[in-house]
Amino acid sequence: MTESVGAPCKVCFLPDDVQVEVPRGETILAAAQKAKVYINSICGGDGICGKCKVIVQKGDISSEPTTLLTREEIQQNVALACLARIESDLEVLVPEESRLEGGKILLDEDGERFGALVSVTGEDFAFRHNPLIKKLHLELTPPTMQDPTADHERLYDAIRRIEGNIEMQTGYQILRSAPTILRESDWNVTATIARRRNIAEVVQIEPGDTSQRNFGIAVDIGTTTVVTYLVDLETSQTIDSHAKYNSQMQYGEDYIKRIIYATNHDAFDEMQRSIVGDINDLIQAFVEEKKTRIGDITAVVCAGNTAMIHFLLGLDSTRIRSEPYVPTANFVPPIRAAEVGIRINHRGLLYCLPSVAAYIGSDITAGAAAIRLDQAEEICLFIDIGTNGEVVLGNKDWMICCSASAGPAFEGQGVTHGMRAAAGAIETIRILPGDKVEYQTIGHRKPKGLCGSGLLDCIAEMLCAGVIDRSGTISLSSGSKRIRERDDVYEYVIVPKDESGTDSDIVITQSDIEHLIRSKAAVYAALSVQLESISMNVDQINRVYLAGGFGNYLNVRNAIRIGMLPDIPTDHIRFVGNTAASGAKMALLSNEAFDTIEKIARQMTYLDLMGNNRFMEEFVSASFLPHTKIEQFPSVERDLLVCAQGGRP
Amino acid sequence: MTESVGAPCKVCFLPDDVQVEVPRGETILAAAQKAKVYINSICGGDGICGKCKVIVQKGDISSEPTTLLTREEIQQNVALACLARIESDLEVLVPEESRLEGGKILLDEDGERFGALVSVTGEDFAFRHNPLIKKLHLELTPPTMQDPTADHERLYDAIRRIEGNIEMQTGYQILRSAPTILRESDWNVTATIARRRNIAEVVQIEPGDTSQRNFGIAVDIGTTTVVTYLVDLETSQTIDSHAKYNSQMQYGEDYIKRIIYATNHDAFDEMQRSIVGDINDLIQAFVEEKKTRIGDITAVVCAGNTAMIHFLLGLDSTRIRSEPYVPTANFVPPIRAAEVGIRINHRGLLYCLPSVAAYIGSDITAGAAAIRLDQAEEICLFIDIGTNGEVVLGNKDWMICCSASAGPAFEGQGVTHGMRAAAGAIETIRILPGDKVEYQTIGHRKPKGLCGSGLLDCIAEMLCAGVIDRSGTISLSSGSKRIRERDDVYEYVIVPKDESGTDSDIVITQSDIEHLIRSKAAVYAALSVQLESISMNVDQINRVYLAGGFGNYLNVRNAIRIGMLPDIPTDHIRFVGNTAASGAKMALLSNEAFDTIEKIARQMTYLDLMGNNRFMEEFVSASFLPHTKIEQFPSVERDLLVCAQGGRP
Repeated sequence: MTESVGAPCKVCFLPDDVQVEVPRGETILAAAQKAKVYINSICGGDGICGKCKVIVQKGDISSEPTTLLTREEIQQNVALACLARIESDLEVLVPEESRLEGGKILLDEDGERFGALVSVTGEDFAFRHNPLIKKLHLELTPPTMQDPTADHERLYDAIRRIEGNIEMQTGYQILRSAPTILRESDWNVTATIARRRNIAEVVQIEPGDTSQRNFGIAVDIGTTTVVTYLVDLETSQTIDSHAKYNSQMQYGEDYIKRIIYATNHDAFDEMQRSIVGDINDLIQAFVEEKKTRIGDITAVVCAGNTAMIHFLLGLDSTRIRSEPYVPTANFVPPIRAAEVGIRINHRGLLYCLPSVAAYIGSDITAGAAAIRLDQAEEICLFIDIGTNGEVVLGNKDWMICCSASAGPAFEGQGVTHGMRAAAGAIETIRILPGDKVEYQTIGHRKPKGLCGSGLLDCIAEMLCAGVIDRSGTISLSSGSKRIRERDDVYEYVIVPKDESGTDSDIVITQSDIEHLIRSKAAVYAALSVQLESISMNVDQINRVYLAGGFGNYLNVRNAIRIGMLPDIPTDHIRFVGNTAASGAKMALLSNEAFDTIEKIARQMTYLDLMGNNRFMEEFVSASFLPHTKIEQFPSVERDLLVCAQGGRP
Repeated sequence: MTESVGAPCKVCFLPDDVQVEVPRGETILAAAQKAKVYINSICGGDGICGKCKVIVQKGDISSEPTTLLTREEIQQNVALACLARIESDLEVLVPEESRLEGGKILLDEDGERFGALVSVTGEDFAFRHNPLIKKLHLELTPPTMQDPTADHERLYDAIRRIEGNIEMQTGYQILRSAPTILRESDWNVTATIARRRNIAEVVQIEPGDTSQRNFGIAVDIGTTTVVTYLVDLETSQTIDSHAKYNSQMQYGEDYIKRIIYATNHDAFDEMQRSIVGDINDLIQAFVEEKKTRIGDITAVVCAGNTAMIHFLLGLDSTRIRSEPYVPTANFVPPIRAAEVGIRINHRGLLYCLPSVAAYIGSDITAGAAAIRLDQAEEICLFIDIGTNGEVVLGNKDWMICCSASAGPAFEGQGVTHGMRAAAGAIETIRILPGDKVEYQTIGHRKPKGLCGSGLLDCIAEMLCAGVIDRSGTISLSSGSKRIRERDDVYEYVIVPKDESGTDSDIVITQSDIEHLIRSKAAVYAALSVQLESISMNVDQINRVYLAGGFGNYLNVRNAIRIGMLPDIPTDHIRFVGNTAASGAKMALLSNEAFDTIEKIARQMTYLDLMGNNRFMEEFVSASFLPHTKIEQFPSVERDLLVCAQGGRP
């Protein structure tokens, strides 16, 4: 695709008005990547997803035939960017729906849903403040004839008086520069030390007292979004947070597609630059807002799935997608952030939290630590719905985990009007008698689409209202006027065009519903297989923690109604938001938290679902609302009885 | 001196025929340094030592007047290179005596006088073979679906199976390259690990079994000579050794002069390049002789005085010579050898052994470990005569050390026909009745000068033969025909011109004798002050260990006769050769030896003699043969009585 096949053509992308020159025969998608113009491409340029629609306003293209465009669209010069080959100079309009949704991604109550800690037992399991990188203000006694201790040892002695008798390490440049700094500052310095267990590295020596200027960045590298938190390492406060879409989205919606893309295009460096660039952009935002200075950021802690961490570090990720699914490293040693191009203090460190396996990453180990699963006496279920759905079952003594490949439907991807939890997203829905739909949007804006909690509500409410049956099929017999047919497919109009914040009706289609049901079914099937593997049943689960970027208000009852969560009392279920980010922040602020995450990563038993026949059987059983075996959901059975009798539970 | 003061002049140095262009007004010494032509300059270019004589064969110079040249020499166009300023294009001959003596410097029985160990107690205190850098051949089990352990952890597991449960560290590049090496080598690799205490760094991963190719370099960085040993880290064998004069000699005979030179000329980088260049030359010699390959050398361990280690590391050494005499570091963390420019494996490590203070370096701590002073039950005296004379007193429970500023007289420097222990050096002398002198040279060559043991013998024999009196004055009344007067100074002819391997008689002058007496007096005075400081006397010393580059055969009895060593039974005295080198080799081969050296460095109490009045008093008392208080040397008193009666003891 990047092969040069002809004379150069100029392509102008609108509305951004970005110009790029590429060889004739190149695809519009490749030209956009070169121009750094973002075009949705969930399938990674395979011509399958139909998300990369563009309008060719001037010039000629050639294209393979595709069923993803209607005749009308073709007449209006709409093309799929991944299939359209450039035959002359072009002017290309990238319409709104092919770009990432605008607006700031919503962060859990500005990143502080649970502070640094969610305790599973209600007791105080807060970790001790003991950040990975500390700044120690040292007022040294100058040497005298009676105390001619060498500079280096004088410094070590002072550090050990605070930190105890630890192993110290110092790089050559620090060793060389220390004597001058010590004297120029009149023996009043701040030593930045990076400590793990009994080993501390002197990272930096600065004149004077800079101990109040020590910041870390916690990063949740999601497949879809990248979220950063600026954390004051001295006060433990989260100063601010920023998020953006993962720029790797243009190479594929999920990480398997991205690995394939990188393999086929020898683009691993490009993938690394992409994610490093995102992190740098988000850090730069803190700096531009004068929340901190680059030199005062001494540490970055990243949580993410195993593939994302591999991309970040430029490690070979090809083996993640082929048997026997072996990562380069689950436990990554800390490295200088500068080695991968992350722009913080030039001697600052990058820590990647430990993974368990190719398909259970540090987002899960960090999440399990955030809910203190390692301290739980009762049996807990921890579900994280992101681009995948990961399921962890266990307590302080044992943990079993698996990855359900649920897909990012509840992140809004692959759903007609799905979107991330950003301003204008519908986050709660209720279908009232009389075909009435009540909803609430984030930021009280005009609705633009549905985020995870809205989608979940939608399915549950449609089930209760009889708009869909237990198989998820839209039921014409419900009599709802909101049901209509378009292109031979039924859809349900949630918000009509005139109420919406976009140019169209906001709908959920039959195919969207099936997509969401597959997603929840994968999660529940994974749980079923796990329970079976240890001869347990649902009743033995005491607590459920649901994590993910659903939005602010997740209706736990509806999560049970659609059969995503097991049918246990709702007061034993808690929506815990972005636990990966919470775990990363905890690790930044506490060596003990980092130790706990490492311990969890070692403790978790990974259950592989790929090629597991029982999983496929359970998946089919779970592809019903709430489940084919409704006896597993007695409370939902009762609700549906009430509904069937014309009431609402 | 390096200031440009005129038009460029071409200078040609003979006999090497090296050309250099320098500004008019530059000194010949500076031009020689630029041309990398070696000219002796003991005083560091101050016009004091008179060692930098050159013959200006063509062209014009101007020079300050000097008393260091005879009228005859001036007529023969001899000039001091440090004073002679270039006024035109020149042709300059550097005569033999202004160049470093040729020939290989003698190493203690090819570097293996005591193997890796000299035990003070006679018991076996050999250290366990546990080299700083190990190569572990690992045959890993390839990953399977049942064992999908990540590559990095698979490697760590294998290393920990051998090394125990240690803290592991790995650099980013090793982490990235490991998966490919593991697979290309079919999981059969060799991991190079650098271990200290409970921490190991993975330095390198190579395909196949290279565990038999692991070499280290032990370096004794003397002020005058640099000695390297090539050590097989797997078999513990010393493969070979090489030595050369320290190229820094051209900047000054002792390190204080060099620090002054470097300060005045902002030449610290030059000093570092000089010593690094020497080490590289010596390593390169092993490689050229095909004894090893650069990539197979994984470690360098250096012992040397504190100033030399500072020069090597490019650390600021100015504070070593001014109160309160504070080094940058006594305990230097290991660094990559490449960081200072030492050419071994590009990820190989440089370890500098720990010093005690500005004037007690790692040559002494390594030496004390080599004789296992840390295990001694009895009170031991350890004296190392190098460019300084360091004196250590103690046993396993306590150690006290001081530096005597003895000067390098016994290394042959500053003595008319003194030389290092190289081929042709007189190493033993006996003056027989009838004015006869018997001597033995190293390598049975024609004599070219006297090395340390020869000089020591010479003074003792002259004393016994009555050629000098107890004040060291050459005694005309002795009637020896070998005594003669030249330039108003008496001298004693040891070897007449026709027997010698040079163009002149080999003599010892009155001033040489005084120089040697000052040197031995400094050592003995240091001992006296030490004893006094802890209220002990000479009788309480049980064992004496004398180290230094004296030659192969040191006459311990004569060392007592001149009052360098205390008068204890000679079978309690042992000449132990180059203990700094032995200690460096031990450290390379054994972490426990390194630990012991560190323990010794922490344990030693440093006694400062600078500005110590008692030292000056003791020095004056000791500036006699053997001492003003002859009662401290009863056996010598008896010997001298025998001699006075015409006999020979």
